Amino acid sequence: MRARKPWHEVAPQLVDVATGRAPAELVVRGGRWVNVLTRELLPGMDIAVRAGRIACIVADAGYCIGPDTRVIEAAGLCMLPGLADAHMHVESSMCTITEYVRAVLPRGTTAIFADPHEIANVFGLDGVRMMVEEAAAMPINVFIQMPSCVPSAPGLENAGAEITAEDVAQAIHWPGIIGLGEVMNFPAVAANDGAMRDMIAATMRSGKTVGGHYASPAMEREFHGYLAAGPADDHETMREREAIERARRGQRPMIRYGSAWHDVAAQIRAITERGLDPQQFILCTDDVHAATLVQEGHMDRVLRHAIDEGCDPLVALQLMTINTARHFGVDRDLGCLAPGRYADIVLADSLEDFRAAAVIVNGELAAQDGDLLLDLPPWQHEQRFRQSLHLARELVATDFQLRVAQVKGEVRANVIGVTENQAPTTHLRRQLRVVDHVVQPDRENDVLRAALVERHRATGEVVNGFVYGFGFNLPCAVASTVAHDSHHLLVVGSDDGDMALAVNTLARIGGGVAVVREGEVAALVGLPIAGLMSDQRAEVVAQQSAQMLAAMRECGCRMENGFMQLALLALVVIPELRLSDMGLVDVTRFERVPVIEA
Amino acid sequence: MRARKPWHEVAPQLVDVATGRAPAELVVRGGRWVNVLTRELLPGMDIAVRAGRIACIVADAGYCIGPDTRVIEAAGLCMLPGLADAHMHVESSMCTITEYVRAVLPRGTTAIFADPHEIANVFGLDGVRMMVEEAAAMPINVFIQMPSCVPSAPGLENAGAEITAEDVAQAIHWPGIIGLGEVMNFPAVAANDGAMRDMIAATMRSGKTVGGHYASPAMEREFHGYLAAGPADDHETMREREAIERARRGQRPMIRYGSAWHDVAAQIRAITERGLDPQQFILCTDDVHAATLVQEGHMDRVLRHAIDEGCDPLVALQLMTINTARHFGVDRDLGCLAPGRYADIVLADSLEDFRAAAVIVNGELAAQDGDLLLDLPPWQHEQRFRQSLHLARELVATDFQLRVAQVKGEVRANVIGVTENQAPTTHLRRQLRVVDHVVQPDRENDVLRAALVERHRATGEVVNGFVYGFGFNLPCAVASTVAHDSHHLLVVGSDDGDMALAVNTLARIGGGVAVVREGEVAALVGLPIAGLMSDQRAEVVAQQSAQMLAAMRECGCRMENGFMQLALLALVVIPELRLSDMGLVDVTRFERVPVIEA
Repeated sequence: MRARKPWHEVAPQLVDVATGRAPAELVVRGGRWVNVLTRELLPGMDIAVRAGRIACIVADAGYCIGPDTRVIEAAGLCMLPGLADAHMHVESSMCTITEYVRAVLPRGTTAIFADPHEIANVFGLDGVRMMVEEAAAMPINVFIQMPSCVPSAPGLENAGAEITAEDVAQAIHWPGIIGLGEVMNFPAVAANDGAMRDMIAATMRSGKTVGGHYASPAMEREFHGYLAAGPADDHETMREREAIERARRGQRPMIRYGSAWHDVAAQIRAITERGLDPQQFILCTDDVHAATLVQEGHMDRVLRHAIDEGCDPLVALQLMTINTARHFGVDRDLGCLAPGRYADIVLADSLEDFRAAAVIVNGELAAQDGDLLLDLPPWQHEQRFRQSLHLARELVATDFQLRVAQVKGEVRANVIGVTENQAPTTHLRRQLRVVDHVVQPDRENDVLRAALVERHRATGEVVNGFVYGFGFNLPCAVASTVAHDSHHLLVVGSDDGDMALAVNTLARIGGGVAVVREGEVAALVGLPIAGLMSDQRAEVVAQQSAQMLAAMRECGCRMENGFMQLALLALVVIPELRLSDMGLVDVTRFERVPVIEA
Repeated sequence: MRARKPWHEVAPQLVDVATGRAPAELVVRGGRWVNVLTRELLPGMDIAVRAGRIACIVADAGYCIGPDTRVIEAAGLCMLPGLADAHMHVESSMCTITEYVRAVLPRGTTAIFADPHEIANVFGLDGVRMMVEEAAAMPINVFIQMPSCVPSAPGLENAGAEITAEDVAQAIHWPGIIGLGEVMNFPAVAANDGAMRDMIAATMRSGKTVGGHYASPAMEREFHGYLAAGPADDHETMREREAIERARRGQRPMIRYGSAWHDVAAQIRAITERGLDPQQFILCTDDVHAATLVQEGHMDRVLRHAIDEGCDPLVALQLMTINTARHFGVDRDLGCLAPGRYADIVLADSLEDFRAAAVIVNGELAAQDGDLLLDLPPWQHEQRFRQSLHLARELVATDFQLRVAQVKGEVRANVIGVTENQAPTTHLRRQLRVVDHVVQPDRENDVLRAALVERHRATGEVVNGFVYGFGFNLPCAVASTVAHDSHHLLVVGSDDGDMALAVNTLARIGGGVAVVREGEVAALVGLPIAGLMSDQRAEVVAQQSAQMLAAMRECGCRMENGFMQLALLALVVIPELRLSDMGLVDVTRFERVPVIEA
């Protein structure tokens, strides 16, 4: 967030207001104080604000009102602390931080804890610094977590950059860095891997928070080893028991309700049915698409959902305010409405059907009825962050033809099977025809070409494979520079010429997602910043994404969101079979396998 | 506490144990895990320990047991985190830190947050450093709060030393200093006094915790000004409403159950009856006498009491474990039983009638059935800390005779009235006879001589006055170098010769409390360290104190604990009338008044 003065620097001003010696800059009058500390609703309270912080909360702050004091009448309205998203990736929205903030601030979000893991895979520490700088210009609190696992799968892929333990040891002290981003390489942590250990140690030494990510339902020795290493939270819990076992052991489960993550219903029962103390639990989004932000919302959506799932509104609020603030050690600044804290105040008609009526940020009215009132200019990224596509040359159809020694006949191929809404792929074996040394796709049986085009170092490398499940039934191709986590360029197609055109189209615009149908570009989402983020508003990104998905469906894709499966084809940390720039990878055994079996 | 390695330094060892690659040093088997995070009792759990920290808590830690692993069977026992006293003054027990720890460790206390305010009034920063050094040698966690108000009443008294804002800015960074001790001068804080502001700012800047002390039932503008200044807790709440209003505003009320403070019954109802979220509340002792420690206990006594007052045992435990740890930002080390935390584990038959059966500290069995098993040598204080009594000369009876210009007749005197168990005194006016220029006490009406003997700078000054309420009905005197907060030497007597003997007796032994009856020393509590602390065990101090109180009663004192009233005669921060080295002080108007009215 824009540099705010620490409490102790403005304390004398706050004391002057609270004692009546100086006027407040803002007084919010007569609202219902939603108290997330004591878990109470207290009607008829006034909040006096100065220097961006709360001076006092009293039944009658009339004595704090001077001739220049702005007064906001809140009679009948709830006054609650701004909502916080405890773990998320801005890049998942395909928006810049600025556009993300523009979308979520009017909905009541005043703090996000962002892990720029994606951009770090493209630009490394430099990309993280860019995000920290943009974050620092925001009107709300955007805390950056230092990515810990770049590349995600060392030895199985080359990302655009690498984050070393030395990088972490340095960056963890940057202003704006709130802790270490999700430590995903849990086997390495449980194995006492040196680099992971050093990153965690540097973070703990700095007093900051180590983010966890133990993505396995197993809770045996490796799980306990991971806990002993220090990660303080985990957003990978899917089942109630996973959340509870972590909470008991001092981790804070961060229960997700993202665009695709629907983890709240199962896990909130730990509180609503089992009656566990809610202080150990947190709500977050992890990944939210622009369309979700625009159409459904952000943490306001999570709040409504948690309440729908039976959670007491005040408890649900604690899970996205004070609990989050305490977890990251920023509860002297945010997470509740109390003297000294930031004047980040949301007004709403009710908690039960929560919609932000007004959002006060840093003591200023920042949004009303969903409209942003602040001036928030688009962030001007340095040019180099718009130059992330490094291809050796224009691609041609033959680049996507997998050649073998044999002239004709059949070969047995290892094929990646994708399923809607499932992150894991399946390892299929299919017989494919060979024509003139070229292995042929089998469109009738939905086995299509899939390729990873190296895009970070212009090596010219194209790794070809086959994929099942996209359903394209006419000549087409879809290419994307969003290609978790290494973010090379992925392309799937039923026509190799269309595949080349899709890739070349992205090369021309600096990255994004392109759908090509029968030789023509049918849809395009431009993501010029790192090949990951648009420079457009969330509404535009949402619209372009919707068009892109529609175009995929028009090509025969049977999945509602076929793009997600495309973008995950290179995710070599989740089983079973993935494409990497180093070849086809069996992620159950963490080793490369040939596309065509000998 | 003895230097413990930070979690990140021993994490690899913990990970090795948790994953089964290395044996634990200690395994506690089959106990009921008292989980203060989720508020659950979980039977049949094992805790594996290494390097003083918990490696894992699992249903069966058999795999962590090697040939050299110590195994403690805890079948049927509760396993709970060590208890913490969130705010207290070791000096109130008249014991050294070491003897305090010896008394409380076997009762389950493994962390205390001590404000050495008393010794700071005698030895200043030097005394604080001495306490930090002794604290660092303890087997349990003794955190020191940096005293903020020394002297307590600047301008109305001269203490033995002064703590400046510069002192605080320096000492706040010492290892072992956990925050700023109770900021008692609340009018100064609300007035934006520069020194108080600087001390608070230095503490907040360091990320440490500012202790509060707003000793007034008024909750008007000054109260809100105090809150806006930053103190994060307050142990001065007496009524439920005072606690609630602070909790709502982000302060943590620290509810006291000390030897004389009985604040729990009224305030715990905020949780038990009103149903407020308990996360904002904390329990502490503030001041406990040696006799209480020895006969009734420490935090175990507080726990039993809170439960007696209707508090759920798990909630009561939270108020003296995890809430306290979070408040001071040490919850990664203590406050719950979880991986990575200190292996400070208490075993007990039940929570309902809590008695510590065994106490494990730093992974070692430290106490069993009330007996300390650790070697805890008495602390050897540097000689200068035993030389705190600086008197210009031996005192004689005439030193305590208040002389006036008139030869005989009567004068009207301002007399301090004391009442059992009440900190405030009353301002009485009495007619006293004058004989040969000397104002006479009026023993028949219980108006006795009271004097403050300057003892820090050997000025030779004796401030004489009169006191009502001690009831001495034979020739006697009681002197004490415990004389809050400036800790000069106070003496009350019905015989001026006995007064001189009492003072001279203390001078000889380096301080303490002396009861002299008819020319003979009837009881003596030696407090050679700073004139505040004994070098004996708590049991001895308790016994000597009991004898001293009995001796006072034998002299006719009608109060159960007349010593407390004696020791508070110089407390120039609490109304109405007090003795200071600068004269008699009217603490309702904060100004000096003559003993004899003109």
